[in-house]
Amino acid sequence: MDSFEQLTPVRFLDRSAAIFAERTAVIDQGRRFTYRQLAERARALAGSLAANGIHSGDRVAALCANSHVMIELHQAVPRIGAVLVPLNTRLSESELAYILEHCGARLLVATAEYAELATQLGSRLAVEVLVADGTESGYEQRIAVAESLDGPLPDERSLMSINYTSGTTGRPKGVMYQHRGAYLQALAMAYHVGLAPDSRYLWTLPMFHCHGWCFPWAVMAAGGTQVCLRSFDPAETWHQLREGVTHFSAAPTVLTMIAESPSAHGARLDRAVRVSTGGAPPSPALLRRMSDLNLEVTHLYGLTETYGPVMVNVWQPEWEALPGDEVDRLRARQGAPNITASGPRVLDAEGGDVPSDGATIGELVIRGNGVMLGYYGDEDATDAADADGWFRTGDLAVMHPDGYVEIKDRLKDVIISGGENISSVEVERVLDSHPDVIESAVVGRPDARWGEVPVAFVALRSGARVTGADLAAHVRARLAGYKVPKDFEFGELPHTSTGKVPKNKLREALARPEPDPDKEC
Amino acid sequence: MDSFEQLTPVRFLDRSAAIFAERTAVIDQGRRFTYRQLAERARALAGSLAANGIHSGDRVAALCANSHVMIELHQAVPRIGAVLVPLNTRLSESELAYILEHCGARLLVATAEYAELATQLGSRLAVEVLVADGTESGYEQRIAVAESLDGPLPDERSLMSINYTSGTTGRPKGVMYQHRGAYLQALAMAYHVGLAPDSRYLWTLPMFHCHGWCFPWAVMAAGGTQVCLRSFDPAETWHQLREGVTHFSAAPTVLTMIAESPSAHGARLDRAVRVSTGGAPPSPALLRRMSDLNLEVTHLYGLTETYGPVMVNVWQPEWEALPGDEVDRLRARQGAPNITASGPRVLDAEGGDVPSDGATIGELVIRGNGVMLGYYGDEDATDAADADGWFRTGDLAVMHPDGYVEIKDRLKDVIISGGENISSVEVERVLDSHPDVIESAVVGRPDARWGEVPVAFVALRSGARVTGADLAAHVRARLAGYKVPKDFEFGELPHTSTGKVPKNKLREALARPEPDPDKEC
Repeated sequence: MDSFEQLTPVRFLDRSAAIFAERTAVIDQGRRFTYRQLAERARALAGSLAANGIHSGDRVAALCANSHVMIELHQAVPRIGAVLVPLNTRLSESELAYILEHCGARLLVATAEYAELATQLGSRLAVEVLVADGTESGYEQRIAVAESLDGPLPDERSLMSINYTSGTTGRPKGVMYQHRGAYLQALAMAYHVGLAPDSRYLWTLPMFHCHGWCFPWAVMAAGGTQVCLRSFDPAETWHQLREGVTHFSAAPTVLTMIAESPSAHGARLDRAVRVSTGGAPPSPALLRRMSDLNLEVTHLYGLTETYGPVMVNVWQPEWEALPGDEVDRLRARQGAPNITASGPRVLDAEGGDVPSDGATIGELVIRGNGVMLGYYGDEDATDAADADGWFRTGDLAVMHPDGYVEIKDRLKDVIISGGENISSVEVERVLDSHPDVIESAVVGRPDARWGEVPVAFVALRSGARVTGADLAAHVRARLAGYKVPKDFEFGELPHTSTGKVPKNKLREALARPEPDPDKEC
Repeated sequence: MDSFEQLTPVRFLDRSAAIFAERTAVIDQGRRFTYRQLAERARALAGSLAANGIHSGDRVAALCANSHVMIELHQAVPRIGAVLVPLNTRLSESELAYILEHCGARLLVATAEYAELATQLGSRLAVEVLVADGTESGYEQRIAVAESLDGPLPDERSLMSINYTSGTTGRPKGVMYQHRGAYLQALAMAYHVGLAPDSRYLWTLPMFHCHGWCFPWAVMAAGGTQVCLRSFDPAETWHQLREGVTHFSAAPTVLTMIAESPSAHGARLDRAVRVSTGGAPPSPALLRRMSDLNLEVTHLYGLTETYGPVMVNVWQPEWEALPGDEVDRLRARQGAPNITASGPRVLDAEGGDVPSDGATIGELVIRGNGVMLGYYGDEDATDAADADGWFRTGDLAVMHPDGYVEIKDRLKDVIISGGENISSVEVERVLDSHPDVIESAVVGRPDARWGEVPVAFVALRSGARVTGADLAAHVRARLAGYKVPKDFEFGELPHTSTGKVPKNKLREALARPEPDPDKEC
C-alpha cells in the first residue's frame, strides 16, 4: 500500500485545479487566470524549463514584481526539483550580480519592470534571461509551445529555494528552504488567517520576501484568488479593499501608509479584512487605528530563516473581557508558535531557559521543520547560527507567563526601514571605502513613516571637506536607495574598552532633542 | 541546523499546554482539566506506562467510553512509541477477545462502564487490566505517583495505532495507522471545520471509531475544549448545543435522531453549530432539516483505512446563487480530497479513470499519507485492498465534472436485478424525500426470476399512515420501474455502533423464511 506522498507545496495546485477549476486563481493587471489555466500554464512552464536544460537542483532566479509570473515560477520551478531564487527587486545591480554569481543561477526570469536590468545582468554574467513583459514575450512564447510536465514529486527534504537576506555581516546570505518546511508553513498560514475558497488575497507584501511568507501556496491550497499589486500604492490598495479583498499582509510601516492615506478617510469597511503584519512590531496605536477601519490585524513574527511567520499572536477568547489598552499590549507581542511550528525557547547566556516572567531577556532560538537547511555555500555562517541544533534568531526576547514571546531588542543592529532589513555593517563598509572616512557606524532612528531610517555617524580624516550629500551619493552608487543614510553626524566615534562602537549609545543620542542642523548634510 | 521534527499528532499538546495552559481542555461528567493539567496527566500516564514495562511497539488496548481517559490515552500511548488499540465498546466479549489476542495487547485500559467486561477479558486472556472509574481508581493512582515522561518523539512513519474494522465480511481487520498520517489528518480537520481556541467540540461520535476522525488531536491542536458524552443521548446533546457547543460530528442516522428528538421542537439555535457528518450519505432532506435548526452540516467521506474523512464536501461560493434543491444535491455528494489528502480516482474495470461525467460508475481508489499502512498481520487482505499502490475503497462512485466524487453504493450493497445494477443509496434517497419517512434502507433479496429484487426497510414518523403501495408509487414516479422495492418492511432500523445500518443483517433477515405478511404493505 502506498502510504506516503512527498510533502511539497506544489502539490496544492493539483487539488485546486481539480476541484476549483473555473474559479479565478490570479488577477494581475488586465489578466485573469482560472485554476485550470494556472495549472496548465505552470505545467507548461515546467515542461519548458526541462526542455531548455533546467534540471533538478539547478537554480532559477526571479527578478519579478508581484505578478502571475512569480506565482507560476513558485509552482513550476520547485515542481521539477529545480531551485527558485527570488531576488529583491530593490537591490542594486552589483548586489544582484553578487547573488546571481553566488547561487550559480542558470536562468534569470524578469517581469517587464526589470527587463532592462535583467538583460544587463544577463550579459554581464552570461546567464540566460527570460523576459515576461506581456503576451508577446519570450516567457509567453515558451509557455505556448511547451509540453506539459508533471513527473514524480521532488523529495520533501530536498532544496526547494534560496532566499537571500541582507543579513547582519555585510554580504547577503542564501537561506536554503526545503519542500517540507514550505508545505507546513503554507498550511499553517491557511489555517491561522482562515483562507477559504471565497478568500481574495491582495499582494501588498513582496513575493520575493520569504516567498511572501508562503502565501502563494497557502492561497492556492485554499482555492482563493490572488490579486497582484505590481507595486504598492495606498490608493489602489483602498480600491481593492472596497472591491472585496478579504486578506492581505504588510509590514507595520506599510499599514501606516494605508491608514494615513487620503483614500482612508471615512473609509471604515463594511466587512472586516484580515491583515497579517510582521517584520517589526506594530504599535498599539497602529493596531487601534487599523481596528477603527475594520482591518483586523494579526501580528506575526518570523525571519527569512524560518519561512516567514513561525510565530503568530493567536487571539485568546479570554482577552475579550480585558480593557482595550491591555489587549493592545497583549496583541503587540510576537506571540506563540504557529500550529505546525515547534515551541520556541528563550535562552540565557549559559544556554538555559530564562524564566517565563516577561522580564528576563535572552536570545530567541527555534528549531523544527520550519527552520532553514542552512546558508547556501556558507558553512561558517550556518554553524554560527546553530546552537546545539537550535537556530539562533539574533533577537533578544522575553517569555511571558502565558507562553507568548515578546522581542525586546535585536541582538545585532539590523535596521528595519519600510519593511526591508538594512545591514548596518554593509552600509558602514561602503562608507568606510570612501577615502575621506576613518570609520563609521550606522544605526536606526525611529521614523513615523518608515519605522526606522538609517543614520550614519562618521569620523572624517582631518582636513577632509566631504559633505553628507557626498557620502550619500557614494552609498547610492553602490547600494539600494533605501540603504542610504538619511542623516550624517560627523565627529569622533565613542568606543568601548574592547574597541567596539556602542551603538546603543548612538541610538540614545539620536533619541534626544533634534541634532544641531549645522551638523547635518 | 535541526530542520526536522517528527510529524506526530502528540506534538500538538505540547504547544497548547504552553500557550493555552489555563483554558479548559476536557470536560467529562463532573471533571474538568485545563491544558496544563491534561498535559501533566498525559506525561504522567506515559511515565507510568513506561515504568510498568510498556515499551515502544507494545499494544495498549482501550475499552473506553468517550472520556478524559480516552483523550489521555490518545496522547500518552503514542507518545512513548507504543501502539493504541481502541476497542468498539459495543462488540461482544468473544469479539473483543479475538481482537485482544490478534493484536497481542499487553495492557487493557477500561472506563467504569466496561470495568467488569474488561476484568473478565483480562483473566480469560491473561492481559493486565487498568480500570479508570473515578478519582480513586487504579488508573488515577498510577497517574498520581508516576514520574512525568517526555523522551524523544517517535518516528513519524512508525506504527501508532491499530483500529479494528467491524468486520462485516468476516473477522475484524486491524487497520494500521502511522503518526504522520494522523498528524496531517488532524490538521486537515482543524482547517476544514474551523477549529479555534474558542471552539467547544461535543463528543457524539465514538472516539474508538477511527480515533473519532482524529478530532481528539485536531481540537487539542486548535486549543479548543472537548466535551465528552459518555453515551449518546439526544436530549443531552440539545442541552449541550444550547450551552455553547460550536462543533460536533455524527453519522446521518444520529443526526436524524437529533433532528427528530422532542428536544429539537422549535429549537432553532441562535448561533450556527458546525456539524460534520459521514459514514453514510446524508439525504438532501436531512441536510435541509438540519439547516432549519441552524446546524450547518459539512458532508465528509472516509473509511477506517483512511484515518476517517479523506474527502470533504468543500463549500463553493458559487453555490450561493443556485436554487436550494440544486445546492442540496451538490452538498449530498462525498466531495473533494481534504487539504492534506491526495486526489482520489475512480477506476473502471480495466483500471483506467472513468470520464468525469457524473454518470459512469467505477471503484473509488485513494493513496497518499492518508492511507493506512495495511492490515495488521494480514498480508492477504492488505494485498487484496491494494491496486498498484492505490487503496481500493470498495465503494462505487462517479466523478463529477467539478472534480467532486459521489458514492453510488458500496460494492457489496449494489443490487443486481434482471441484469441491471440498482444503487441502494439512490432508492433510499427517494424514499427519504417522502415527508412521512424518517430513514430507510434498501437491500437485495434473492429471487428465482430476477436474481435479486430490491426490498425496503422503512422507519416512519409516529402517526404516519403511509402504506407500502404509497411509497412504491412515490418511487415509481421518480425512478425506473425495476428500482421500485418489491416489498416494504416498516419499523425502527437497526444501527451499528458507528451509526450505520448493517445491511448484511437486513439481508440475513430476508434470507430467513417469509416474513409475517401482516408486517408488509
